Amino acid sequence: MQLFELVQESGVPAATVKYYLREGLLPPGRKVSARVSEYDETHVRRLRLIRVLREVGGLSVAALRDIVETAEDEALTAQAMFCRTADAIAPALVARPADDGHRAEAERMAEQVVSDVGWTRVRPEAADRESLVSVLEALLGAGPLTPYPAMVRWYADQADAIARFEISMVNADQDRESLLEEMVVGSVVLGELLVVMRRLAQEHHSAERFDEGGPA
Amino acid sequence: MQLFELVQESGVPAATVKYYLREGLLPPGRKVSARVSEYDETHVRRLRLIRVLREVGGLSVAALRDIVETAEDEALTAQAMFCRTADAIAPALVARPADDGHRAEAERMAEQVVSDVGWTRVRPEAADRESLVSVLEALLGAGPLTPYPAMVRWYADQADAIARFEISMVNADQDRESLLEEMVVGSVVLGELLVVMRRLAQEHHSAERFDEGGPA
Repeated sequence: MQLFELVQESGVPAATVKYYLREGLLPPGRKVSARVSEYDETHVRRLRLIRVLREVGGLSVAALRDIVETAEDEALTAQAMFCRTADAIAPALVARPADDGHRAEAERMAEQVVSDVGWTRVRPEAADRESLVSVLEALLGAGPLTPYPAMVRWYADQADAIARFEISMVNADQDRESLLEEMVVGSVVLGELLVVMRRLAQEHHSAERFDEGGPA
Repeated sequence: MQLFELVQESGVPAATVKYYLREGLLPPGRKVSARVSEYDETHVRRLRLIRVLREVGGLSVAALRDIVETAEDEALTAQAMFCRTADAIAPALVARPADDGHRAEAERMAEQVVSDVGWTRVRPEAADRESLVSVLEALLGAGPLTPYPAMVRWYADQADAIARFEISMVNADQDRESLLEEMVVGSVVLGELLVVMRRLAQEHHSAERFDEGGPA
């Protein structure tokens, strides 16, 4: 297919497609003349993936490049693919200043909960360990909801039950590009699904608790 | 306290504090001379709240203004406060073009799951209903993980169990500003805690499933 068909199929504007081609997020088409290239289903698929990760996950071009390189490195095992994409997805939480006084406590809490809940296979260098420290540090500094070990552990248990089932459902009998797509869309978009549904559920249960006179 | 002490206490730079004062996110201090104002604990607290919501939640100034106005409107009930802040927090997911062909299906799935799981108290106009449609539409369009009713329902059940317990733990015996702080920090920062922990748990369970030869 030509560029305009690729635009129609993927829903990504031509200028953006050209930008992704220049940035190497999309492999070049097959040149059929000096000015015309042919694209195929792999381009449509890649564009759809990039689009959902940008629109729902707000991923940066740098993060997308890491994911694309992971897709194209055929030497990686499934777990290595998982780890590389996890580190790309880990949010770039703004580093909190060291003089806030909560950094050391947040680090201790993070290490403790990962150990207590039994996540022994998380790499020491996993980017999300730092994300966890940052979130705990923010909670410790913010005031209204000071985290304590049993509360942090409760969230870890909820997260563990969800992730255990999700990973058991991953279809391992598919080509590596499909497996990678399933991993990143699962991590980013299903994570957002969970967060949005949690807020809807909070509204419902908050009404049940605080607004008992309201309409049932 | 004077401005420089407010900066020290809150960890927010002076230029940012002045910007928040101009934008009305922070109430003015008490003027003690033509050039000097006095600030107090309420300013420190407000700044800490704004800071965590910006750093962890990535909330816009417009969203923060909605939250601040909610805090200052003493006529609102607890549930009205909850709903106004929920709508401020609801992520501004990029609207997907109507010609993608999945909008109607996503709307049907969203309505179905909210009804099936029994979230009868969610307002028809809640901003997160639209967030849910957007996430489902993104999943339907992305390809690798097509949502089906039982899967969507499973996420709703997980979210429901989490939110039910969280709302039951809210401390209702506190002043309204504290209650609001607990609501928004709970929604934004504990949501992020859950998402980060889910990714850590996925790495662990993925290693257990796909990398059985690796270090235990």
